[in-house]
Amino acid sequence: MTTADCPLCIGDGGRVVLRTASWRLIHAGEAAWPGFYRLVWNTHVAELSDLRAVDRAACLDAVCAIESAMRRHLSPTKMNLASLGNQVPHLHWHLVARFDWDTHFPAPLWAAPVRQPAMARLADLQARLPALEDDLRSRAFA
Amino acid sequence: MTTADCPLCIGDGGRVVLRTASWRLIHAGEAAWPGFYRLVWNTHVAELSDLRAVDRAACLDAVCAIESAMRRHLSPTKMNLASLGNQVPHLHWHLVARFDWDTHFPAPLWAAPVRQPAMARLADLQARLPALEDDLRSRAFA
Repeated sequence: MTTADCPLCIGDGGRVVLRTASWRLIHAGEAAWPGFYRLVWNTHVAELSDLRAVDRAACLDAVCAIESAMRRHLSPTKMNLASLGNQVPHLHWHLVARFDWDTHFPAPLWAAPVRQPAMARLADLQARLPALEDDLRSRAFA
Repeated sequence: MTTADCPLCIGDGGRVVLRTASWRLIHAGEAAWPGFYRLVWNTHVAELSDLRAVDRAACLDAVCAIESAMRRHLSPTKMNLASLGNQVPHLHWHLVARFDWDTHFPAPLWAAPVRQPAMARLADLQARLPALEDDLRSRAFA
């Protein structure tokens, strides 16, 4: 896949919460998963180990800082972090706040659902996003 | 979950490839996924962001070094990295070599399979593990 074919090179990949010279944070915009963000590395590289050490550290420091903010604002049962990219091999990290009431818990979000969506809880979660995103935007990311 | 209840506190979690003071690398031992390892943090913490910065850097440097070795020895189509822990909230990283011929590609390995297992290719992959593991054991991890 060349950069001209890559959806994460051609577009942002979703609603941009925060953008730095090296990466951007987008909200995944999946209705069933309000607490689902993606950190997308701006340059087209496939694997974490394709980054120089300094860039890798910056990437993972950002993932960790975003995880911390998500924990503080969303109080998830568990955080899920994943860099898969089988469909779009352009480095991006999935950051997902998981809850013991969500449709898939404790299964991975990519597995089959185990219960119906809890609409009131999803709405409550959605309502917490602006404060989380304001907090993230207020930080001095490199 | 207290440490007394945690399978990754009580046991190693699988065949140990490599052990340091801070973490161990285990082979996941799932027949359908020869190229599936887990880096297990030795101390019982749930989230990456529970680690001190120095430990976090050591953990992620190790994940990246193991990813690099897996790429060199196994030549995967894509590497998948994930810290989920919904069932066992003791920090561990899944490192999975994915191939365009595997049962799930390009779907996540936790989704439904899309094809039958390629037995000869799985056997070939299995045969590459000793060299990979020898290489990993020869490194000076902190």
